[in-house]
Amino acid sequence: MQFKGNKLTVTVFGQSHAPAVGMVMDGLPAGIAVDRERLQAFMARRAPGQGSFTTARKEADTPEFLSGLAGNTTCGAPVCAVIRNSDTHSRDYSQFLAVPRPSHADYPARVKFGRNFDIRGGGQFSARLTAPLCAAGGIALQWLESKGIQIGAHIAAIAGIQDRPFDPIAVSGKDFDRVRENGFPVLDAEAGRSMLAAIEEARLAQDSVGGIVECAGIGLPVGLGDALFGGLESALSAGLFAIPAVKAVSFGSGFEAAALRGSQHNDPYILRSGRVAAATNHAGGIVGGMTTGMPLIIKAAFKPTPSIGQPQRSVNLDTMEETTLTITGRHDPCVVPRAVPVVEAVTALVLMDKLL
Amino acid sequence: MQFKGNKLTVTVFGQSHAPAVGMVMDGLPAGIAVDRERLQAFMARRAPGQGSFTTARKEADTPEFLSGLAGNTTCGAPVCAVIRNSDTHSRDYSQFLAVPRPSHADYPARVKFGRNFDIRGGGQFSARLTAPLCAAGGIALQWLESKGIQIGAHIAAIAGIQDRPFDPIAVSGKDFDRVRENGFPVLDAEAGRSMLAAIEEARLAQDSVGGIVECAGIGLPVGLGDALFGGLESALSAGLFAIPAVKAVSFGSGFEAAALRGSQHNDPYILRSGRVAAATNHAGGIVGGMTTGMPLIIKAAFKPTPSIGQPQRSVNLDTMEETTLTITGRHDPCVVPRAVPVVEAVTALVLMDKLL
Amino acid sequence: MQFKGNKLTVTVFGQSHAPAVGMVMDGLPAGIAVDRERLQAFMARRAPGQGSFTTARKEADTPEFLSGLAGNTTCGAPVCAVIRNSDTHSRDYSQFLAVPRPSHADYPARVKFGRNFDIRGGGQFSARLTAPLCAAGGIALQWLESKGIQIGAHIAAIAGIQDRPFDPIAVSGKDFDRVRENGFPVLDAEAGRSMLAAIEEARLAQDSVGGIVECAGIGLPVGLGDALFGGLESALSAGLFAIPAVKAVSFGSGFEAAALRGSQHNDPYILRSGRVAAATNHAGGIVGGMTTGMPLIIKAAFKPTPSIGQPQRSVNLDTMEETTLTITGRHDPCVVPRAVPVVEAVTALVLMDKLL
Amino acid sequence: MQFKGNKLTVTVFGQSHAPAVGMVMDGLPAGIAVDRERLQAFMARRAPGQGSFTTARKEADTPEFLSGLAGNTTCGAPVCAVIRNSDTHSRDYSQFLAVPRPSHADYPARVKFGRNFDIRGGGQFSARLTAPLCAAGGIALQWLESKGIQIGAHIAAIAGIQDRPFDPIAVSGKDFDRVRENGFPVLDAEAGRSMLAAIEEARLAQDSVGGIVECAGIGLPVGLGDALFGGLESALSAGLFAIPAVKAVSFGSGFEAAALRGSQHNDPYILRSGRVAAATNHAGGIVGGMTTGMPLIIKAAFKPTPSIGQPQRSVNLDTMEETTLTITGRHDPCVVPRAVPVVEAVTALVLMDKLL
Repeated sequence: MQFKGNKLTVTVFGQSHAPAVGMVMDGLPAGIAVDRERLQAFMARRAPGQGSFTTARKEADTPEFLSGLAGNTTCGAPVCAVIRNSDTHSRDYSQFLAVPRPSHADYPARVKFGRNFDIRGGGQFSARLTAPLCAAGGIALQWLESKGIQIGAHIAAIAGIQDRPFDPIAVSGKDFDRVRENGFPVLDAEAGRSMLAAIEEARLAQDSVGGIVECAGIGLPVGLGDALFGGLESALSAGLFAIPAVKAVSFGSGFEAAALRGSQHNDPYILRSGRVAAATNHAGGIVGGMTTGMPLIIKAAFKPTPSIGQPQRSVNLDTMEETTLTITGRHDPCVVPRAVPVVEAVTALVLMDKLL
Repeated sequence: MQFKGNKLTVTVFGQSHAPAVGMVMDGLPAGIAVDRERLQAFMARRAPGQGSFTTARKEADTPEFLSGLAGNTTCGAPVCAVIRNSDTHSRDYSQFLAVPRPSHADYPARVKFGRNFDIRGGGQFSARLTAPLCAAGGIALQWLESKGIQIGAHIAAIAGIQDRPFDPIAVSGKDFDRVRENGFPVLDAEAGRSMLAAIEEARLAQDSVGGIVECAGIGLPVGLGDALFGGLESALSAGLFAIPAVKAVSFGSGFEAAALRGSQHNDPYILRSGRVAAATNHAGGIVGGMTTGMPLIIKAAFKPTPSIGQPQRSVNLDTMEETTLTITGRHDPCVVPRAVPVVEAVTALVLMDKLL
Repeated sequence: MQFKGNKLTVTVFGQSHAPAVGMVMDGLPAGIAVDRERLQAFMARRAPGQGSFTTARKEADTPEFLSGLAGNTTCGAPVCAVIRNSDTHSRDYSQFLAVPRPSHADYPARVKFGRNFDIRGGGQFSARLTAPLCAAGGIALQWLESKGIQIGAHIAAIAGIQDRPFDPIAVSGKDFDRVRENGFPVLDAEAGRSMLAAIEEARLAQDSVGGIVECAGIGLPVGLGDALFGGLESALSAGLFAIPAVKAVSFGSGFEAAALRGSQHNDPYILRSGRVAAATNHAGGIVGGMTTGMPLIIKAAFKPTPSIGQPQRSVNLDTMEETTLTITGRHDPCVVPRAVPVVEAVTALVLMDKLL
Repeated sequence: MQFKGNKLTVTVFGQSHAPAVGMVMDGLPAGIAVDRERLQAFMARRAPGQGSFTTARKEADTPEFLSGLAGNTTCGAPVCAVIRNSDTHSRDYSQFLAVPRPSHADYPARVKFGRNFDIRGGGQFSARLTAPLCAAGGIALQWLESKGIQIGAHIAAIAGIQDRPFDPIAVSGKDFDRVRENGFPVLDAEAGRSMLAAIEEARLAQDSVGGIVECAGIGLPVGLGDALFGGLESALSAGLFAIPAVKAVSFGSGFEAAALRGSQHNDPYILRSGRVAAATNHAGGIVGGMTTGMPLIIKAAFKPTPSIGQPQRSVNLDTMEETTLTITGRHDPCVVPRAVPVVEAVTALVLMDKLL
């Protein structure tokens, strides 16, 4: 369950209903200032209970730092942050070891771990684990910013409703600010309202919706990454697919590139303000596995939350009989809004590791 | 440039115009039989010179095994295979250190490595490096087959023309055989002819086309993979993005999942022939980062080859002036057909590592 | 600061005077029973405050498990255990950033980390970090025992006074029991009394003494380990040198082997109770980097505690003037008795990783 | 069989009687000049056939570079060097799969790998594999030298006869030159002659002798390494124990430190030429797992060559009967002289990785 970079390792631990979730960042240099208030604000973007579109579970998500900081500065020792799990309703989950929820980790986890699997709240497969990921990524984001690098994400689509995309050439910190100031992380407020309506509609139908998060990175130096398995796309995608519910990842034009001709897709080099730049950015800022200096443009697709209130077919693994299952309890009809900072966090961790 | 699994490490080396390319597989158990003829046949599917749609460069791509085999069986020592580079025209490339080709590795590689970068043929960023990858993956494929696991891929699309997709429930070894017996790796011969026409059209226009490869895996046990960064999608995507020109990777419904509702996307469990199965397979065989036992369904998008004969804009990095560049020489107007076995090879390496 | 095995990763975190020290074990299979009472008893062997030979610092060293256990059984998620630091006197250490203590980590740590280094109690270089190591190793020891493998260590020497060594052929679990039942971990009680006298003598002289720990492993299968960097001696030594104060590690006859002839040192194979065994065990149970099935025999030398009460020469790094330093406060005159379970813990972690 | 550093990976491959042995260095920056003549001279110090004290096997040990160099400069791609195995007498080894040679890898390798183990010449456990290690280490040594860091080793002892040790405070490049200029790598020529006599005596008795190599590193910056498992001693010992026949590794006073008091062993800080230094160097240049800036002082003990001409007891694994074995063929009566550059090579690789 570790992020293993070349210099940076982030060990995430915890289960949804264990005493705590947390993380250890190993490999951080000494002397990094951590602004705890900004970190808390970053984590709040992921935290539940922000609106009708999220789960009713309420948790402060305030990390306790057990090690690695002297005051608010890294001291060179691994940073451990722990977030207690408090508002848990464990009685809801006992049945799913026998009758796995469709499209949840229940079935493969039971086969893999047996009856010892801590299925309460989804165990270590719960989106709850993205809280410590954000604690780690939030520190990475602050460090990147101190180096002139900014990462920002927004909802590109929910339920097929699309937000305005980032400008792959001119995306700027102002775009990131706009998304963050917005209660709902989109560029186009109108699209956001439609998305919220679609989420609410799904919720009322005891259903859920998926979506796409687009993430950009600006201010990156040229040449981060390497050939083959050392490529930046490999590292970023490995990080992004670690986020629960991600089913596709693309860079730049992504799947659309497959339908273009080379003459359409190639990004010619030009001089912009006296510096080498690309006239277009179909590559999404990565060529040959390495950064080109153009904005990094990433998309990650999230499947609809598998926890829905409608009755579903399943199999009782103990009796080996087909059965029907109804999931009760509190669930996000859409994880995408809360996933936006998680995508930023993971992107930041990967980039920080490559830059260290 | 290494594939670093938990048990298996594949170190790929070489540049397009170095004396050789090759690979070392470390972590193979002793006693694996390697059928060299079948390995050669597998590598031939990637080799150039098969038709009008590939580069005119001709190389036998016959690996010489320097170590790790006793006869045709692994002996427990690392397996090293070397493929000599013979048919190289190095004079073609000298100019690109100054004037980088758009959407090639030239520019970031020069910034990263300086003038020592061996730009001939694209250096270590060349698709030539997929030859040793196939040597390694071909061994993994044989091993997987001995365990009842089969991997097969086909061209899902070229230039927007789509092949019939694999049946995500019922895909079988017969589908893989059909694709392999076909000279052009598609399920639907008619679609294949249209693709070939589109490739030829692009070639005549001194242009290139991209495409999509779909890969399936069958016979996998339930529970391969783990939570978060240990997830199978992370490992597979990291491998697939290591293949030059891949710009997007998806599992199951991928980006389309983002527009579905949970009630549409969830895969209900049923009994099929007395065993737990899923009625649908939107998940592409992976839930919670773990295999479900359903067919693995992966898609990888390849951008159009950046080497096109048309004049392109670029910048002379030595004089810092905008200029025009014309690439001559031999180039694939479409890498997708030759990429099909490469996708199989990488998928096999990742799965073998998880199974060991 | 991580132990990185092939399957098992142990991330240790904390500083001597941070809120806590702790560890995360990643890669444990589900279903391992953890006997917390026995774990506590194991950790008590390392804990301070056991006698006149240890520091006066008193801490319960009771790990709180934040994750990874369902009841007392591993659930397949990473196990995190945290041990709070309570009895800390941080005011004692402030001066050493300017005037480093000889043979402590102070000087290189200040150069490496700058003034942000958390020097209180030695920071992350403190022997306090061996508490979470024992929590992890204690779990490994229980698992190994369930597989018929036992690890035991004793003090081989303190201040030049030697204990009776393990019999390299016939060492058994009874020897380990004897050492553990003994308050002072030696085989020969008489030698133990002499060691205690030497420690007390050093303490009264405001001085310290070093020593040697010998560790044995029995019940191991043949063939654990591999060639070159995959060798078991490499893995074990890397683990043992991670223990603060270890300055030498040897296997079997160790340095003495260098003075022997092959005819003296070689271990002839014989049949013992119908099974292949070696007539002698100069190899310490490892040949060619692999276990031979004979008892594993390891020695680790510990330097004398650098914290001594006598005035010592040092340099003021701020004024760059030579000066004299006197260390006050509570310190072990000898770490060796408390290091015995730490050596067992690290040995167990390495072996468990190789066996998984 | 890989050296896995943080930045640098060296994959060694080959068996004694495979077509070749070789290595791939991954992670080398572009632009490192490789002086092939000096590299060849370095490798010649390890090569067989230099005198009566080495095996009669003669091989040029000239590496062919297959990749990673543009001319004589690293280009940023992995460097692969291959050394062909030519002068092999494979018929000598067939019997040892049934009747393992005492203190060779034969027995555990057969149990581990089964009958597929390539036992000829010891397979991947052969000291022959140190040839590619020296190719890699030789490049590291050249790079370190370009950074003002020098590594040198000598025979500290053979058959109990001791050379003058390096001065742990004042050891200099002149000492390294003296050892290299000497045909036999010692500081004290008289001791060298006694060692040669002892080797010859053992050879005539169909026996072998062991010894100790001492290695020093000078010019290192302060603070290389880290706490616990990140310590430099862990990395160096893991590397050194990878060398066949090493059974003990120590730093500074090593095992002797265990018998000293803190007041004797501590290294007080002083100013020397206006810079912080230590008055003594019992630590061997490493405290808290980090370099102190004082010379690095390492000792590695080599067991006597297990291949001796005298009849030895063993067991026939096929018939499970005790038997007698006589090893014929060409063998070093002492590997220590040839091991001197290997110790330098491994030390250089570890240090280069920490410095990158």
